[in-house]
Amino acid sequence: MSNSIKLAILGLGTVGTGVINLINDNLDELKRRSGRDIIITEVGTRRQRDDIDTSIMQNSDLMAIAASDNVDIVIEVIGGTTLAKDVIMQAIKNGKHVVTANKALLAEHGNEIFAFAEENNVHVAYEAAVAGGIPIIKVMREALAANKIDWLAGIINGTGNFIMTEMRDKGRPFADVLEEAQELGYAEADPTFDVEGIDAAHKLALLASIAFGIPLQFDKVYCEGITGITLQDVNYAEELGYRIKHLGFAVRRDGQGNSDDAGVELRVHPTLIPQDALLANVNGVKNAVLVNSHPLGQTLYCGDGAGAGATASAVMADVMDLVRVLGSKSGDEQNSSEQNNRGHHVPHLAFIPEQLSDTPILRAEQMITGYYLRVHAYDSPGVLADITRILSDAGINIDAILQKPAHKVGQVPVIILTLPVVESQMNLAIEKIEKLETITDKVVRIRLDELA
Amino acid sequence: MSNSIKLAILGLGTVGTGVINLINDNLDELKRRSGRDIIITEVGTRRQRDDIDTSIMQNSDLMAIAASDNVDIVIEVIGGTTLAKDVIMQAIKNGKHVVTANKALLAEHGNEIFAFAEENNVHVAYEAAVAGGIPIIKVMREALAANKIDWLAGIINGTGNFIMTEMRDKGRPFADVLEEAQELGYAEADPTFDVEGIDAAHKLALLASIAFGIPLQFDKVYCEGITGITLQDVNYAEELGYRIKHLGFAVRRDGQGNSDDAGVELRVHPTLIPQDALLANVNGVKNAVLVNSHPLGQTLYCGDGAGAGATASAVMADVMDLVRVLGSKSGDEQNSSEQNNRGHHVPHLAFIPEQLSDTPILRAEQMITGYYLRVHAYDSPGVLADITRILSDAGINIDAILQKPAHKVGQVPVIILTLPVVESQMNLAIEKIEKLETITDKVVRIRLDELA
Repeated sequence: MSNSIKLAILGLGTVGTGVINLINDNLDELKRRSGRDIIITEVGTRRQRDDIDTSIMQNSDLMAIAASDNVDIVIEVIGGTTLAKDVIMQAIKNGKHVVTANKALLAEHGNEIFAFAEENNVHVAYEAAVAGGIPIIKVMREALAANKIDWLAGIINGTGNFIMTEMRDKGRPFADVLEEAQELGYAEADPTFDVEGIDAAHKLALLASIAFGIPLQFDKVYCEGITGITLQDVNYAEELGYRIKHLGFAVRRDGQGNSDDAGVELRVHPTLIPQDALLANVNGVKNAVLVNSHPLGQTLYCGDGAGAGATASAVMADVMDLVRVLGSKSGDEQNSSEQNNRGHHVPHLAFIPEQLSDTPILRAEQMITGYYLRVHAYDSPGVLADITRILSDAGINIDAILQKPAHKVGQVPVIILTLPVVESQMNLAIEKIEKLETITDKVVRIRLDELA
Repeated sequence: MSNSIKLAILGLGTVGTGVINLINDNLDELKRRSGRDIIITEVGTRRQRDDIDTSIMQNSDLMAIAASDNVDIVIEVIGGTTLAKDVIMQAIKNGKHVVTANKALLAEHGNEIFAFAEENNVHVAYEAAVAGGIPIIKVMREALAANKIDWLAGIINGTGNFIMTEMRDKGRPFADVLEEAQELGYAEADPTFDVEGIDAAHKLALLASIAFGIPLQFDKVYCEGITGITLQDVNYAEELGYRIKHLGFAVRRDGQGNSDDAGVELRVHPTLIPQDALLANVNGVKNAVLVNSHPLGQTLYCGDGAGAGATASAVMADVMDLVRVLGSKSGDEQNSSEQNNRGHHVPHLAFIPEQLSDTPILRAEQMITGYYLRVHAYDSPGVLADITRILSDAGINIDAILQKPAHKVGQVPVIILTLPVVESQMNLAIEKIEKLETITDKVVRIRLDELA
């Protein structure tokens, strides 16, 4: 058994069961690729399960498993940020590598967890935490390691993408589609994390850190969900050649002669993007991440962002990485805990810890994006002139205007697309527009990005 | 300098120069990610160059560089399969890691080169050899390491994709677009490698080996180029909801109760794919690879498949991989050549060498694909009945038929889309169709894949 790798799986929900199934299905592939036997020795589960192979020890004491001598790698798939954190810290303290799919935990406590792992010379792998089966963590940490990353934009919440896709394809309103997503199991009974963008913000915090070499700063992510998106806006966007997707953006800004404006934008929000962009054609529960880097240019990664199979694939890819490194230990098993880890020199956040930068995260008012504006006005002469003058005075360039026939008596919706502008400028302009006597409602605004 | 990694670049063409530029541009990023100084110590170039930093030794004797004590990693970007092979073998013999972008060399001599590298405990990295800047080698070898790969389909020749895109978008004939591609530098003066599919076949051979764990077998790739594709077929395909792309396919077949039919299909050919597939919307010189694996499902990887920046990105990603492993060597520099390599246990062809399988490559007649058929017939009663009867007798299911108005007096083109069928069956059916008295020309056939 000295050639075998012993796994513990903590949590036997969808993902944990998916990992067991993957190992059963692909045992031969795993062995042919790693040259090692990969075996599950222990599982952490509250209730004894009858459907688990009897060779696997079942234990409800997760802290004991995380310290067990019979375990090389601990797979944490219980979720949450309390017990999950305790068992991960316990595993690290006991010299175990950890594989986790827990985006919330890492986004909120990753700095502490990764530091503790480095101190203890083990690795906490988390491919499954972002974009499910899409290997975006490996791609950004390793494949793009020679690039300077300028920005990334990602569909990183499958539930949100499903809802946006259905609204557009079938002309169904938000609430209606959300209900279906809940019936299909795509959305939780309490859908807040998905539809308010919090889940996407967790993932974005992780992506931004490995893109730019900055500490995790989930609390600074600007976060806007999709609950306010109406069919009307979906349709106007399409008419103008755009599509509304819920995206996470991490953007490096060098500042324009003013170093106060230099920093990183971290934002999650509905966004109009060009219809013919590949990202606009990633539909249903699929995820995708578009990365723009120098000198590579744009690359896109697309696949299933959730589900047992996709998540198990990512979890086990991390295990294979660790196995291929564990495989490098010398014959001297006595010395194994030190030897195990020497090989793995891909830093947790892609950049070596002492080189993480204190680049500031920009405030919302400093962010620069294009805008879609929907303004409702009484159909009186001069109203369009008033609006465009206000925008022009604020230095905001208009890219397109669409004036629709009145849908309420005497009122016309005017749709305006703008070029990128600093948010504080847009706030002032909208304030002025809303003060016009001819304006009947709050101005609806959705961000717009050409992905160029 | 003991903390620095010393690179030699053999060849200062587009790619070699791109690597130098990348290192200059991103020096800070490289150091922040690796914790090491990455320096170019020697370059191999036929003529002395004035535009190279004087700290770098220029040498026209590539074999000497490949053996130099002043070099840790040899980057081979001279191309070709003769001198390139000699310098790579020389570098391996001298305990250097190698990074190469040379698809032709690896497709034809990779088995020998990789075996020699394993014998000498060094690694030959080749991310840049397939799909340029798209990290498909890393993705398939590492990120999908826990999956069983069922098939992959890739746009892996940018020139071919540019030509197919222009033909469709602008209605221009093949020869016309090829000329433009040559003027733009996308196609060589002798475009054979690109337009006949040979370049794609080289890359497919590499992808198939790491997908299925089989030795490189370039000579067994079925290869068909795009020179025979007419605007007429491009347009009929669009009318039927499909798009013609030049694709490489690697497909695992389990055989249908008959183990003689089990094996791997390796084929490069124009293919009708559904218009709404993401792959159908990868345009211009972009490359993309779609991988279908269990349990992950379909994932897509898209980006620039050629050019200085994209290729340099891939070359330097390999260097960073090696640096992060070289970084694992202990302080004991005496023992470094052994220590260097212990960490890198990702096998060259993804599967450990003794686990490579002798799964046969299927012959063309055994391959299973759908078909697009264009049949020209005299517009006489019963001709469609004759054709469909022949197909039906051969067990070929028709998916769609499009009968166009006669474009020559009395002749009608009939377009037929079929469900997947074994090629030998289709050959027999076409032979019979061509013998019908009402048929005026050879039947045009193009393969079709639903990518499902």
